[in-house]
Amino acid sequence: MTTFTLDERLERDGIPIASIGLCQMRLMNDRRWPWLVLIPQRGGISEIFDLSPLDQTMLTFETNMVATALKKVTGAEKINVGALGNIVRQLHVHIIARSDGDPNWPGPVWGFGKSEPWGEKDHQAFAARILENL
Amino acid sequence: MTTFTLDERLERDGIPIASIGLCQMRLMNDRRWPWLVLIPQRGGISEIFDLSPLDQTMLTFETNMVATALKKVTGAEKINVGALGNIVRQLHVHIIARSDGDPNWPGPVWGFGKSEPWGEKDHQAFAARILENL
Repeated sequence: MTTFTLDERLERDGIPIASIGLCQMRLMNDRRWPWLVLIPQRGGISEIFDLSPLDQTMLTFETNMVATALKKVTGAEKINVGALGNIVRQLHVHIIARSDGDPNWPGPVWGFGKSEPWGEKDHQAFAARILENL
Repeated sequence: MTTFTLDERLERDGIPIASIGLCQMRLMNDRRWPWLVLIPQRGGISEIFDLSPLDQTMLTFETNMVATALKKVTGAEKINVGALGNIVRQLHVHIIARSDGDPNWPGPVWGFGKSEPWGEKDHQAFAARILENL
């Protein structure tokens, strides 16, 4: 069994918020969209089907818990959920709040333009609201 | 409870392959990528968290079963899984085989270029291989 170590690009691109069970929850440092990432704390996993069946169920539960909170906090029109991993192979699930008129709506967020970092107070306040609603 | 009726855009863009339990499985009519779509046969659902907990678990199970078959059949480098729904609101999960050098690698497939329809024999043969590997 491989030990879990967070991929360095995931570490660089996101701000840690909490460990919520199976997953580490991070906020992407890009205030263009409210954008959370869940990383299952298991080593050597790049596809959801590489997880054990129990971990798959846990990941589904945690993804939907976070998606529900994100919808509630942002009032977004649509939540986008995706596990791509073409660049960073460590399994990670994106959960993004989308609304008509946001940058690149209705297209996907990945690979679009340049990220805009959050201000420190702003991301702390946002993270607090997500945690209150889990 | 709302009755399930397939969204007309999903109907137009994909080729039906099978009903695999909760979901209808369709092949996107775009041979640039081996690209399957699962649509839970439940009415009035646009977010995964709108499904009952049991249906969420079923969807996870069916998604991973199909992703595993797609990986096996294509030998793809990475499977991309996503539920976006910014354009078509009926809940549907994309499962796409990706490899280095494919159109738009390592970017996402959604909204990229113009789809290229499958030949009829080709999509039938591909669908048969997926079904054999479920």
